[in-house]
Amino acid sequence: MKNKLYDFTIKTLGERKIPTPHTPGYFTDDKKRILYNVNLENFDKLKNGDGLPLSIEVAGPREMIYFDPAKVKAAIVTCGGLCPGINDVIRSVVMQLHYLYGVKNIVGIRYGFQGFIPKYGHDVMELTPEFIKDIHTLGGSILASSRGGQDIEALVDSICRMNIDILFCIGGDGTMRGAEAITEEITKRNLNVSVIGIPKTIDNDLNLIDKTFGFDTAISETIKVIQCAHVESKGAPMGIGLVKIMGRQSGHIAVSAALAQNDVNFVLIPEIPFDLEGEKGFLKALERRLQKRRHAVILVAEGAGQDLITNDELAQTDASGNVRLKDIGIFLKNKISEYFRKIEMEINLKYIDPSYIIRSVPANACDSLYCAILGQYAVHAGMAGKTGMVVGLYLNEYIHLPISTVTLRKKVDPNGNMWMRALEATGQPPSMKN
Amino acid sequence: MKNKLYDFTIKTLGERKIPTPHTPGYFTDDKKRILYNVNLENFDKLKNGDGLPLSIEVAGPREMIYFDPAKVKAAIVTCGGLCPGINDVIRSVVMQLHYLYGVKNIVGIRYGFQGFIPKYGHDVMELTPEFIKDIHTLGGSILASSRGGQDIEALVDSICRMNIDILFCIGGDGTMRGAEAITEEITKRNLNVSVIGIPKTIDNDLNLIDKTFGFDTAISETIKVIQCAHVESKGAPMGIGLVKIMGRQSGHIAVSAALAQNDVNFVLIPEIPFDLEGEKGFLKALERRLQKRRHAVILVAEGAGQDLITNDELAQTDASGNVRLKDIGIFLKNKISEYFRKIEMEINLKYIDPSYIIRSVPANACDSLYCAILGQYAVHAGMAGKTGMVVGLYLNEYIHLPISTVTLRKKVDPNGNMWMRALEATGQPPSMKN
Amino acid sequence: MKNKLYDFTIKTLGERKIPTPHTPGYFTDDKKRILYNVNLENFDKLKNGDGLPLSIEVAGPREMIYFDPAKVKAAIVTCGGLCPGINDVIRSVVMQLHYLYGVKNIVGIRYGFQGFIPKYGHDVMELTPEFIKDIHTLGGSILASSRGGQDIEALVDSICRMNIDILFCIGGDGTMRGAEAITEEITKRNLNVSVIGIPKTIDNDLNLIDKTFGFDTAISETIKVIQCAHVESKGAPMGIGLVKIMGRQSGHIAVSAALAQNDVNFVLIPEIPFDLEGEKGFLKALERRLQKRRHAVILVAEGAGQDLITNDELAQTDASGNVRLKDIGIFLKNKISEYFRKIEMEINLKYIDPSYIIRSVPANACDSLYCAILGQYAVHAGMAGKTGMVVGLYLNEYIHLPISTVTLRKKVDPNGNMWMRALEATGQPPSMKN
Amino acid sequence: MKNKLYDFTIKTLGERKIPTPHTPGYFTDDKKRILYNVNLENFDKLKNGDGLPLSIEVAGPREMIYFDPAKVKAAIVTCGGLCPGINDVIRSVVMQLHYLYGVKNIVGIRYGFQGFIPKYGHDVMELTPEFIKDIHTLGGSILASSRGGQDIEALVDSICRMNIDILFCIGGDGTMRGAEAITEEITKRNLNVSVIGIPKTIDNDLNLIDKTFGFDTAISETIKVIQCAHVESKGAPMGIGLVKIMGRQSGHIAVSAALAQNDVNFVLIPEIPFDLEGEKGFLKALERRLQKRRHAVILVAEGAGQDLITNDELAQTDASGNVRLKDIGIFLKNKISEYFRKIEMEINLKYIDPSYIIRSVPANACDSLYCAILGQYAVHAGMAGKTGMVVGLYLNEYIHLPISTVTLRKKVDPNGNMWMRALEATGQPPSMKN
Repeated sequence: MKNKLYDFTIKTLGERKIPTPHTPGYFTDDKKRILYNVNLENFDKLKNGDGLPLSIEVAGPREMIYFDPAKVKAAIVTCGGLCPGINDVIRSVVMQLHYLYGVKNIVGIRYGFQGFIPKYGHDVMELTPEFIKDIHTLGGSILASSRGGQDIEALVDSICRMNIDILFCIGGDGTMRGAEAITEEITKRNLNVSVIGIPKTIDNDLNLIDKTFGFDTAISETIKVIQCAHVESKGAPMGIGLVKIMGRQSGHIAVSAALAQNDVNFVLIPEIPFDLEGEKGFLKALERRLQKRRHAVILVAEGAGQDLITNDELAQTDASGNVRLKDIGIFLKNKISEYFRKIEMEINLKYIDPSYIIRSVPANACDSLYCAILGQYAVHAGMAGKTGMVVGLYLNEYIHLPISTVTLRKKVDPNGNMWMRALEATGQPPSMKN
Repeated sequence: MKNKLYDFTIKTLGERKIPTPHTPGYFTDDKKRILYNVNLENFDKLKNGDGLPLSIEVAGPREMIYFDPAKVKAAIVTCGGLCPGINDVIRSVVMQLHYLYGVKNIVGIRYGFQGFIPKYGHDVMELTPEFIKDIHTLGGSILASSRGGQDIEALVDSICRMNIDILFCIGGDGTMRGAEAITEEITKRNLNVSVIGIPKTIDNDLNLIDKTFGFDTAISETIKVIQCAHVESKGAPMGIGLVKIMGRQSGHIAVSAALAQNDVNFVLIPEIPFDLEGEKGFLKALERRLQKRRHAVILVAEGAGQDLITNDELAQTDASGNVRLKDIGIFLKNKISEYFRKIEMEINLKYIDPSYIIRSVPANACDSLYCAILGQYAVHAGMAGKTGMVVGLYLNEYIHLPISTVTLRKKVDPNGNMWMRALEATGQPPSMKN
Repeated sequence: MKNKLYDFTIKTLGERKIPTPHTPGYFTDDKKRILYNVNLENFDKLKNGDGLPLSIEVAGPREMIYFDPAKVKAAIVTCGGLCPGINDVIRSVVMQLHYLYGVKNIVGIRYGFQGFIPKYGHDVMELTPEFIKDIHTLGGSILASSRGGQDIEALVDSICRMNIDILFCIGGDGTMRGAEAITEEITKRNLNVSVIGIPKTIDNDLNLIDKTFGFDTAISETIKVIQCAHVESKGAPMGIGLVKIMGRQSGHIAVSAALAQNDVNFVLIPEIPFDLEGEKGFLKALERRLQKRRHAVILVAEGAGQDLITNDELAQTDASGNVRLKDIGIFLKNKISEYFRKIEMEINLKYIDPSYIIRSVPANACDSLYCAILGQYAVHAGMAGKTGMVVGLYLNEYIHLPISTVTLRKKVDPNGNMWMRALEATGQPPSMKN
Repeated sequence: MKNKLYDFTIKTLGERKIPTPHTPGYFTDDKKRILYNVNLENFDKLKNGDGLPLSIEVAGPREMIYFDPAKVKAAIVTCGGLCPGINDVIRSVVMQLHYLYGVKNIVGIRYGFQGFIPKYGHDVMELTPEFIKDIHTLGGSILASSRGGQDIEALVDSICRMNIDILFCIGGDGTMRGAEAITEEITKRNLNVSVIGIPKTIDNDLNLIDKTFGFDTAISETIKVIQCAHVESKGAPMGIGLVKIMGRQSGHIAVSAALAQNDVNFVLIPEIPFDLEGEKGFLKALERRLQKRRHAVILVAEGAGQDLITNDELAQTDASGNVRLKDIGIFLKNKISEYFRKIEMEINLKYIDPSYIIRSVPANACDSLYCAILGQYAVHAGMAGKTGMVVGLYLNEYIHLPISTVTLRKKVDPNGNMWMRALEATGQPPSMKN
């Protein structure tokens, strides 16, 4: 059981000697845990050294805390791409620190990890309840963000210089790897700094986490775009609405949106390879659909069909630390046009690429609620002196997970329920491989 | 283990001899089950006769089905109060029956169980994909609904006369009790009719079900109203925004909405009694809040503070099978006005009662997705000949539950996480009892 | 032509000697005017002393201005009930003053005219671009408001003491009467203070003004409520959706909303009296409608049918300077219930009173645009030293009007186009008087 | 005065002998007219032969009608690009014909003028109140549309063969030219067929018409996208949000949206030429903006800067009867990237092209209301036997205009109020020409 992915132990900076100042009077004990595996068949196959089934620590306010609210200084940093709900998390963390624990010294680091590095010249922001009270009505991050890592030693130097005691990191898997490296460097230097991650990926593809914030909003927004594509496809003879959506490594958004608004006739995702040509290929299937129903809506995740693209001109221009993807949207648009030109069938194709519109809206109610709770639990964990961990939702329960366990990507299982439901909703062929 | 609430056995009408016609190629076995209890401490305390921990059947398409798609006739009925998502469930059931299983004979029963009783003279509706394709853009139920039960024998007579093989019942706990009685009468008569429930309660207070459809939309809409109340309260000197929201027996909507839009300063729910008068009472707490911040927002669930109301004139006029509630909204409005008049403090109170506006909107994306999936699984269960059961979500997994296990109400635990988070978000006194 | 209502002369504080600092290079001359009357039949019936048809001054930037941007101090005050768009106007005025004219000294007066009176102890707010940049995303008024007038002399004393040079008043007809009185007092004292009104009435019933801001948003929001009422009415046997909407003295919102969402079957407004009882009365008409179509939606403006209400218990509790209205919504609800109880016809009535929800949302795009432009023109007028005037839209052109000309109420003409269209859209009897 | 553009005479098919069946009891006389020109300076410069100022016929129900409701057959056709509100107009026309005049024979022509031509094989649609009652909740056109004209004689043959008496044409300037040709052919053949246009252009650039339907919705939607672009631009170091919006020949949408949501820093439209390079050019201005504020939002109408594009690869792929435009969005994106790469300044550019999303949403309240009224007046005009005309809004009054007068495009006046306001709102240099 030395596998990092199965080690659910949460580290604490030290003994907790200060009674929590907040009044509600309900506390969660460190020993409260839920099972990792809930399938009847094999729930007790994986065990800890103590012979008990693998289990995960439940989040919540601890009766005793580690940091003195009057002296502690907290910082928040947001990294990676924008995602609905970041401001909600920031707001919740500040509100919770200020009003529940009485922490007054809270700063925001600007432009991601860049904000720690002096050469960029970014000032920090004072975060007060007055300043942040309405930020949940705005999309994006009031702290702004940046992509890419920074030198970990310089980062930790900065954390020391700024006397930060708790660092809340909001970001994706890259950021979480950064947060882990920071935690390790802090441990190495024997510092009493807590690092708490609040995982952010609009794609909802983080290992072990039921749902990442922003995903629900992304689906809401995607659905609106699908409705538009549907309207466009039905508005002209042989209309095709082609929508490219987020999902570099996983098709969760595409599949969920296709299900929620079942006007989608083809959903294409990274996990399910397909052919373009041939009797079973996508283009032939599209032709058959058009012959039968005279319109079609296609939803493609940006990471789908990468193996099909050979034209280097379609390499994505949106640089980042991630692998560069080729633009499947433009590629499909061209291939479809070409195909129907060849078979002399007049079509009306409308191509829509709404990613920036989707990710930069304010969080919807569902995500607002989720972000508010994540912020509350993150603060409880930080004040208790926990470190190197993230807060998340697992089996409908808020839990603590070591950062290392969530850096893996969760895929859509080609043999699972979710993909099955998508096939049912779209009516597309179960396989478009020849 | 003879307790009905712990008996998770699902009944089937008979042997399944017909291969499922739908193509996706993924099937779920009846033996796939998840644990009922996932707390590490006591997960194996409750056991079945076989010595295994209690567990629940997982939903999904079965490889063999019971009904012949070419001959089967399905009916859908919607009962009780309106709730966002009913049309989405209807649409999903029809689409799934029609396109996945090839069932063409689908009818809608009008105005709830009334539609089965000849004396009301309601015609049935043919439900075709063409007819239902856009109904998810409309709130309410295209079948309409009614409250109150009907004579079970007459109902089953009607089911026989109409040759219905599968009955999908969408409704609340009353409806589910009705569905159970129907199932029992069907069993008594030895009929091969499947009864599948899709539980509906906007209050999200059904035992064992993670989340009922419409709840998420209700929160979204409630949040908008809270924002308005907040704007009103801040827009005038000593402004008070008082919002009455659904929640006859439980405060889930109120608590979740207060958390998601944390502009609420007092949330009052049925589970938490409070005093009006006295040093620790609500009115004094409100006065303190106003002195300090000059405005306040109060969110009250309709079932809160029933013990305080003695004036019989405030009995609710909205009749239904439920216990008549006294109108806590009007009552509080009067009591607050009276109190501040007495202490000669000028206030500006704005009272908002938005329940009908909230429950009659179309489902949002999150609920649309959930309804679509519930509809798919309900059809899989029905075609497999399961009966006397509901589909739902438990620990993030779609499952089958005997109807009898879900007719209990789930409350907000006064000592639980959720209420603790609400106290944190509102900053209200942990107790307003003297 | 000494009638105040036809005197369209705009006063200026004095000679304009300073070239406007703003660059766009387009200016409007004071002489640019549009006709008051555009009907071919009688356009030249009303003439000025100079023998020309009556005409109105066109708004816009003047080449020379009166106030020195470096020295001028501007103040903004918002009075009366909330209305969508107030924050948009504030934002536009501040942005325009700051960026276009270089005015840095801008303050906001809190809680309406109360903010001028020292005894209330309200501080002023510094209004900077940074502070106001996102306020259009919030409903209400960031300055807050209050109802009722204050002592004019004390008010002008305060204006002097604060060295205010330009006062922007956002408010309804009461506020405009106050602004006129302030202008007169200022003139009497020989002060060089400009008073510019931006008329606000959600009811869109200001004389001469094509459209007041907030009206479009109010209709958008009302439509949503009508949709809900429609869904409710169709969701139950013999369902009735009854919606009470703003409109104390005029039915513009009710009529426009009924037209835009033509699910309304009866629209009742102050301008059109109706009977309850009798063969031609409203209740009989409602009964006929229900018999024929089994559901009905009624939209009633709050000032409708006041002559019918004798029960003093229904006097409105929302105090203000306005005449106290009796609550037609509750009254109708009771009368309808009583009537159908008497004739033993079972109905399902749902009553909705959404006024506070409607008026406190942020402005929609249409109103945002309108408010942005009104703010721009108000600043141009103020900087040019105009006074005692309002900016508005007349025949699709932005114009200046003396305050005195707009304090009258515009009614829905019972013999006009608008009411005719409403009758067509609802299908209600042209008259419900016996 | 033989100029077609100033000839406001409306043709009628013949004498009106049938009393209008609709009850409201309010009628508009043919003689009711409003002035064409309302500027005081020159209102009487343009005169008719009769010596009166030019004037325009007011719309409304006539007391006597031409067509017998029991026998008349009406048809509706929708042509050109999608636009919010088409379904609202269809709905209003059908409701008005059916309920007000008692016309039962109403058909919809599918896929624009193609639907008249037998070789395309498109069936007509029966349009009943039941069928169309909820179509305003859907974007697009339930009749679908197509671009391009068809043979006029074949079209009129078809109209005859189908016994159509009134043809309602919903479309843009191309369609209106088609409608005029149809009217002429009908006149030539001496047929008693009325042709009524309801002008549609999302760009709001029709001569003489205050506002075309769909424009308001387009602005609402554009604003949302601008907000996203703003969030994106502020979310990353040196962020640029670049949005391409509709507007082939005019910048009305771009200018109005920039004003309504004044987060736009540069608005580029067809009417205002600009340079890219040079000290006064756009790129230098953008650089200055970024240096000063670190982010920028650019809104470009698709017809802007066409003279700058020489690369033929950027020719627009969306074919239609219109002149092919080169893609200014992609062009600017490339030029901006290139420029900052050259001066070694790191930027983060996000490009958004939302046109299909904007035009395919359902109409908002403002447009719904406008469409409802246009439909009502179109029916009044058609039933009165008027022909060769359109209904529209002029100086806030609903009027009749000969089709020939509205086929010209209305531009944004570079010396006018509107452009001045846009310059003020954006703060961009008044000229970006060297």
